Amino acid sequence: MLKFYYAPGTCALASHIALEEAGADYEAVRLNFATEDQKAADYLAINPKARVPSLVTDQGVLSETPALLLFIAQSYPDAQLAPLDDIFALAQAQAFNSYLCSTVHVAHSHLRRGHRWADDPAAIEAMKAKVPQSVGECFDLINQEMIKGPWVLGDHYSICDPYLFTLTRWLEGDSVDRTSLRSVDAHFQRMMDRPAVQKIVAEHTG
Amino acid sequence: MLKFYYAPGTCALASHIALEEAGADYEAVRLNFATEDQKAADYLAINPKARVPSLVTDQGVLSETPALLLFIAQSYPDAQLAPLDDIFALAQAQAFNSYLCSTVHVAHSHLRRGHRWADDPAAIEAMKAKVPQSVGECFDLINQEMIKGPWVLGDHYSICDPYLFTLTRWLEGDSVDRTSLRSVDAHFQRMMDRPAVQKIVAEHTG
Repeated sequence: MLKFYYAPGTCALASHIALEEAGADYEAVRLNFATEDQKAADYLAINPKARVPSLVTDQGVLSETPALLLFIAQSYPDAQLAPLDDIFALAQAQAFNSYLCSTVHVAHSHLRRGHRWADDPAAIEAMKAKVPQSVGECFDLINQEMIKGPWVLGDHYSICDPYLFTLTRWLEGDSVDRTSLRSVDAHFQRMMDRPAVQKIVAEHTG
Repeated sequence: MLKFYYAPGTCALASHIALEEAGADYEAVRLNFATEDQKAADYLAINPKARVPSLVTDQGVLSETPALLLFIAQSYPDAQLAPLDDIFALAQAQAFNSYLCSTVHVAHSHLRRGHRWADDPAAIEAMKAKVPQSVGECFDLINQEMIKGPWVLGDHYSICDPYLFTLTRWLEGDSVDRTSLRSVDAHFQRMMDRPAVQKIVAEHTG
């Protein structure tokens, strides 16, 4: 059985939703970042990056959201969570998820994780101040160009959807007005109508 | 025929090498970031993110390095650039490439692209100052944990190798001593022995 490590409020929500949508047999293990569970020796042995998500499989441990999402889609093909038979369409899905991890998530991280990239407290405050703009610009582009509708890739729900949903949930904290982003907001509401999403969001917020 | 847009000094080098190793039929188009070619209207029509790489295919445009690399590996299976028949091994490859794009490349970007995340000139200087440490920590982890050897994934050269090589080339500018990283340095030298790598590096530096 798969063992999935997550912490509330993190991007692990995306893979958690995907596991649930895939009908995977998995056990979810919650870490508490407030008590720095992710830096404990037993967790570092699983994931030396001290991050979530981590997925422990019979073959070894996987990390990094885009990798987990593709692994879940390929491991449970009946759930049809990615266009696995279309190389170009799959590349579009991967491009979307890469943009989320390397640009959008990173822009957001400057709100509370500025210490990764500077030591000066004033610099860390300056990073916080720009988050509404930098995250806002990313989401303007997503809103205008990247959601084919009703789902990210078009008619079919995919691994791109829970990932976008996860970052959309952060917009309020980022001081970006979701309701002004028509496609993003409609996507968010559509996600919240899904039972698997409701269930996993409840686990993360409970 | 594929049309590949790159700029010297960018992460586009990774996909460029992969295209060459795959034996792809492609045309390379060089952009000059000094004259902001990437912000010209004709390029924004190709890639509204104003970044490289972009790959124009018969089916549409792709961007984001991890997506291009997987697309190249899947489009040219005879080149055996990824473990396409092993879901777990492919996920490991994707995890490695995701780490490079979302953490390692991002740490490096604070050297010259700090304006993305703060406006204050002092904050941008503070970001530059931390690059040797933040990039150095990433590469310590890569050096200790992530290169199975002789290639990233073990015996088989893959799409992970040109991507690691691309970021390794930046270490000197990041003030990180490559030669102190034994596995990384050996990997770098091994890459430089490959004719395809030599050819594409010459194109980027010429």
